[in-house]
Amino acid sequence: MSCKITGTGSYIPSVVTKNDHFQQHEFLNSDGSLFPGDNEATIQKFKAITGIEERRYINDKLNTSDIAVIAAEDAIKNAGIDKETLDYIIVAHNYGDVKAGCIQSDTVPSLATRVKSKLRIKNPKCVGYDVLFGCPGWIEGMIQANAFIKAGIAKKCLVIGAEALSRVVDKHDRDSMIFSDGAGATILEASSEEGGILSHQTATFSFQEAEYIYFGKSNHSEAPEDVRYIKMNGRKIYEFALVNVPKAMKECLEQSGKNIEEVKKIFIHQANKKMDDEIIKRFYRQYKMAPPENVMPMTIQELGNSSVATVPTLFDLVNKGKIADQHLEKGDIVIFASVGAGMNINAITYQV
Amino acid sequence: MSCKITGTGSYIPSVVTKNDHFQQHEFLNSDGSLFPGDNEATIQKFKAITGIEERRYINDKLNTSDIAVIAAEDAIKNAGIDKETLDYIIVAHNYGDVKAGCIQSDTVPSLATRVKSKLRIKNPKCVGYDVLFGCPGWIEGMIQANAFIKAGIAKKCLVIGAEALSRVVDKHDRDSMIFSDGAGATILEASSEEGGILSHQTATFSFQEAEYIYFGKSNHSEAPEDVRYIKMNGRKIYEFALVNVPKAMKECLEQSGKNIEEVKKIFIHQANKKMDDEIIKRFYRQYKMAPPENVMPMTIQELGNSSVATVPTLFDLVNKGKIADQHLEKGDIVIFASVGAGMNINAITYQV
Repeated sequence: MSCKITGTGSYIPSVVTKNDHFQQHEFLNSDGSLFPGDNEATIQKFKAITGIEERRYINDKLNTSDIAVIAAEDAIKNAGIDKETLDYIIVAHNYGDVKAGCIQSDTVPSLATRVKSKLRIKNPKCVGYDVLFGCPGWIEGMIQANAFIKAGIAKKCLVIGAEALSRVVDKHDRDSMIFSDGAGATILEASSEEGGILSHQTATFSFQEAEYIYFGKSNHSEAPEDVRYIKMNGRKIYEFALVNVPKAMKECLEQSGKNIEEVKKIFIHQANKKMDDEIIKRFYRQYKMAPPENVMPMTIQELGNSSVATVPTLFDLVNKGKIADQHLEKGDIVIFASVGAGMNINAITYQV
Repeated sequence: MSCKITGTGSYIPSVVTKNDHFQQHEFLNSDGSLFPGDNEATIQKFKAITGIEERRYINDKLNTSDIAVIAAEDAIKNAGIDKETLDYIIVAHNYGDVKAGCIQSDTVPSLATRVKSKLRIKNPKCVGYDVLFGCPGWIEGMIQANAFIKAGIAKKCLVIGAEALSRVVDKHDRDSMIFSDGAGATILEASSEEGGILSHQTATFSFQEAEYIYFGKSNHSEAPEDVRYIKMNGRKIYEFALVNVPKAMKECLEQSGKNIEEVKKIFIHQANKKMDDEIIKRFYRQYKMAPPENVMPMTIQELGNSSVATVPTLFDLVNKGKIADQHLEKGDIVIFASVGAGMNINAITYQV
């Protein structure tokens, strides 16, 4: 018995926000002082490091749970399953539904309940819950679904990663340019075919790293004291990720019994192009190899970093042949990997 | 191989708030009109239905994750385990950390990361995540931990339910008298002993019931439009719970292969005494029996409804002989059951 992805879906938000949108922003340091240099130069440097040219935001009428539903419908359709046969709906996110113009996270009922309700699923045995695990939440949801199938309590799971980071960014923080919105979804099913999830690894580094990504005050000293935004210590994350992500990926691949030469694609959290490039280089360096061309499809240039949504969205786009020079074939070995708030790291070795 | 609870812990918040605290509150209907009658009569009626005489709130310096840590330390000590051997830390909550006087939920990093960090656990293979599943979150966390152990990816899990509902109540809503704060924790371990988790059931009713408990506006018409509070449709929940909880408990018990006569205790979510009494009556009515005396320990009189924390706290108190005329013996069959936002219902048949 294997656990295979039988359907994928995603939602690419409609509001395209190009880098020049930030030309007029007043970027401040965390101590409130003005960030030196003109915004043109700041944006150019930002683009050179992160690779981001534009990002997507949801329109004001939508919430995270709404786009989770759209991605879910897409995945259900792609899998060709009866939605009433789902045993689990697992929704990974970090901030719940934050209405446009509001600062509160709404997580009651859970986003999974909202998704199930909007999908008009009647079967009460379809269990919906939310998992909070930072950016690696969708991969962790897949690992949990895999465990439920192996433990014999599920056969068919819908796993969604959805986030609207545009609702929690500090416009005075240059890091606000990184973040975006999106939703990706997959159907994971018990299968008699070979392949599927071959191995997985997860780690939570919280001894020194717990606050590398956090909810903090605006860089603007006159902003309301009690309103907080997504904040990160980019330098520390970069160093942390470069040491720990390649190691976790290697452990995961070894556990699967597959060889590095068999790895066809790596779907990695779209956090920062320079960081992702370096992670892949270091991953292959462990095998004394250079990364093969086209091994790592990227969407960050146009979609930014939508947290839990990046990996399932990327996989959906490649699965459906929507990214140039990227495609999957039956039997291909791929690796999913992510790193984010927690600090959490995880990886899955998967055979298509 | 069985999955057994090897340690329990809880934190009972220090601020005792008696019913007369609400004498001066201005109770309003949801349309903003004054609730008729004097508060003395309102409070008496409230007590007659819910059984609540007082409830506990955390002090202003504490957050939900802080009390989760205290309960966790208690459980780890009770189990006598090395904290570095934990494979999972699962924290069930609904609102994250809401600082006193603030309205934002802080869930980044996850509460599980905060707990792990404050417990000073170094082992990165100890995975921490949060589960959002309404009041039944702790039971669901136990079901997930059980699945991880059965799937071979964990041997020792810390499962916590922690909530500070005092931070999200609308003081103009009579239902605010129900809610309280608290934290309970358990260690679930793979064991070679008999018993442990024998069976479990979970259901999510969202087709018509998704909004029975929700995040909504204050009953005060002049309250800020965008500030929301925990809200519930008590009548609908009552009717829903009476039909569906006894049924889920029966299914769960049948699945365990144990007889109703063997059930020694029922640890049910402390939502409302009248509702819990009626659920138990209806549960036994399915077997043409009346509930045995003392089968259902209750803490709601003094602790109120602390959401995810009620069941693990209750179990900890009985496990440690802290409730008069309530104790457990090795081999006892007990049922855990809960109902809450989602609407979610779950139950576990467990052998001590």
